[in-house]
Amino acid sequence: MSTPGEKAIALAQGLIRCPSVTPKDAGALDVLIEPLKKARFVCDRLTFAEEGTPTIDNLVARMGDGPPHLCFAGHTDVVPPGDDQLWSHPPFAAEITDGVLYGRGAPTRARSPASRAAAMDYAKAKNREIEGTISLLITGDEEGPSINGTKKVLKWMEQNGLKPDHCIVGEPSNATALGEVIKIGRRGSLNGRLKVSGQQGHVAYPHLAANPVKGIIEVLAKLYDTPLDYGSAHFSPSNLEVTSIDVDNPATNVIPASAEAKFNIRFNDRQRPDGLHTLLHEEISQTLAGTELKFTLDFDPPGDVFITEPGALDALLSEAVNEITGKTPTLNTDGGTSDARFIKDYCPVVEFGLTTETIHKADENAKIADLEQLTAIYRRFIERYFEAFAGNPDGR
Amino acid sequence: MSTPGEKAIALAQGLIRCPSVTPKDAGALDVLIEPLKKARFVCDRLTFAEEGTPTIDNLVARMGDGPPHLCFAGHTDVVPPGDDQLWSHPPFAAEITDGVLYGRGAPTRARSPASRAAAMDYAKAKNREIEGTISLLITGDEEGPSINGTKKVLKWMEQNGLKPDHCIVGEPSNATALGEVIKIGRRGSLNGRLKVSGQQGHVAYPHLAANPVKGIIEVLAKLYDTPLDYGSAHFSPSNLEVTSIDVDNPATNVIPASAEAKFNIRFNDRQRPDGLHTLLHEEISQTLAGTELKFTLDFDPPGDVFITEPGALDALLSEAVNEITGKTPTLNTDGGTSDARFIKDYCPVVEFGLTTETIHKADENAKIADLEQLTAIYRRFIERYFEAFAGNPDGR
Repeated sequence: MSTPGEKAIALAQGLIRCPSVTPKDAGALDVLIEPLKKARFVCDRLTFAEEGTPTIDNLVARMGDGPPHLCFAGHTDVVPPGDDQLWSHPPFAAEITDGVLYGRGAPTRARSPASRAAAMDYAKAKNREIEGTISLLITGDEEGPSINGTKKVLKWMEQNGLKPDHCIVGEPSNATALGEVIKIGRRGSLNGRLKVSGQQGHVAYPHLAANPVKGIIEVLAKLYDTPLDYGSAHFSPSNLEVTSIDVDNPATNVIPASAEAKFNIRFNDRQRPDGLHTLLHEEISQTLAGTELKFTLDFDPPGDVFITEPGALDALLSEAVNEITGKTPTLNTDGGTSDARFIKDYCPVVEFGLTTETIHKADENAKIADLEQLTAIYRRFIERYFEAFAGNPDGR
Repeated sequence: MSTPGEKAIALAQGLIRCPSVTPKDAGALDVLIEPLKKARFVCDRLTFAEEGTPTIDNLVARMGDGPPHLCFAGHTDVVPPGDDQLWSHPPFAAEITDGVLYGRGAPTRARSPASRAAAMDYAKAKNREIEGTISLLITGDEEGPSINGTKKVLKWMEQNGLKPDHCIVGEPSNATALGEVIKIGRRGSLNGRLKVSGQQGHVAYPHLAANPVKGIIEVLAKLYDTPLDYGSAHFSPSNLEVTSIDVDNPATNVIPASAEAKFNIRFNDRQRPDGLHTLLHEEISQTLAGTELKFTLDFDPPGDVFITEPGALDALLSEAVNEITGKTPTLNTDGGTSDARFIKDYCPVVEFGLTTETIHKADENAKIADLEQLTAIYRRFIERYFEAFAGNPDGR
């Protein structure tokens, strides 16, 4: 008999071998469904489509009935591997070398098997007599537009009486070592585009022109120099990064007519997207006041900030982490967005998974020892969860 | 009999009707040569070629012999007309409407006929018995790479005992009205490219990346904030303009690996190109010190700064301008480069021509009244020049 950790490793290898770059499934869901069905989980394969977006296959696998309902959320899709030459282990081969499992998406794809292995092991230990529900929500659209993924699955779960009471998202939460961090929220994300327009002219006569490149430099330097805030109880300071500036002027003796910049703001719970719009508009207007330069400022729909206030969920998870790793995780809210931004509208949600060190890079990988420990942490947490919440889903 | 001014207008129309966009001649030199030959000027058509550059036709037309040798320098080539739709008068039709002559290059092409008409009229008045030499140096490569143009013509003139003693370049020197400005030098021009390289990463984890866009913004803002100098006796302050910034990063959630900027410096006689290289290198190093960002800084070969110290040449020209227009021109060194940068190595050179208002724009034009006045100014100047310098080419 293999241990839950060994099972997780085999499952992770199977999953990594599917080149399921968003929105392709490439057989990934079948790899998941087969052992779950064998373990007598109820599996609902949910295909969602919307005009203008890729059709996505999702999965809800569950065992048990009624509250408390603990859900593990994850995804099968990965970002493209980029240049194959940069990988010393092929991105979809799932090679294990010196205790390290290599492959595109390894830190997320190895986590998903960890929760499944833990859930299956718990179900087996309880002879499938769980006092409540344990479910796995798997989407194929976490790295993509996220239109036909977790958002629609949650709606389907609610409509079918399967709304979770608590959820763990398995995204990599630790910077360098398993057990460092539990994420209890995420900053919001706002993408913006600034276009500054001036007056074209000869570079020898700048006073007869209005140089939009000079203007955009001043504006962006000012934005970098002005802190948005200084953080809050659970959040680091909001941060603006300029990701591109483009003018595309081939003539060395011509002042161009316009310049464009793209930026991203990661914002905390002191900010609202509307407030950021207003703030930036004012700062840019002030900086360009007295010049002949005009500007336009556009924003994509924002990713909202959210926080799951510290409580029973993170406390139980912390205890499990501490029991297995000896570490006491800190609670934080840094880093990128995840599907937790959708789940927070349904139930308390926290995130705990592997480490972020190699995420989205070439030779992305997960340590086998970490994967075994993560499986053990999830397994211990599930046990503690049902001990604490059975008959009392709102808190212990 | 037509007046010199009327002759100049007819010659200008003939020239504008040749679509001689650099390096094409399109019959422009023939339009010039015919009347000059008829007026018994000695015409040398000089064709220069060099590997990797367009072959160019040039012209030296002269009358008389020995010192003093007064040369008028000009060019037949023009920049492309751009979008025809933006012109209300076709760029190569030479239409005259309400006393305005329209056409690509009109302010430079109408000046060339003015000096020719004046020179021919003076030669005729003197029965071709000039006490010295009057010459016209015409190139077809002033707006282009300037490799097979004025530079090589001057060398040819020197080798053939035809080095001028003084030269007038007919580039547009006045901002809005004829008679405002005589240019006695030009700022140097230096094109540079700055590349800042950092560390790619996820926009949510800027501390794990090194954002080259942030770095290039800081560097360029600093360069704009730091004056290079405060000008000199005959020059305005040196000026740096950023003409392009390019990152071309399509991903909104990725910090890019590098960012590039292009800039041009117009520098006065307080600066040397080598000194500017060193200065910029130091400022950029200082600004990026303490970051993980690296940079490279490249420069094209510079266009040198030069000054013809005020003296007899500009004084004589000023008197002629004042006699015809009633204005006393100021002496300055602003604006773009011209072929005067090559001529200054052979003899004193100043620039006086039409106005810069419409130069290189759509509906580029020259006022007929200005063209008539310019012809009269050149005519008067030629007379004064030979009065002053005959038998005394080094000064009166």
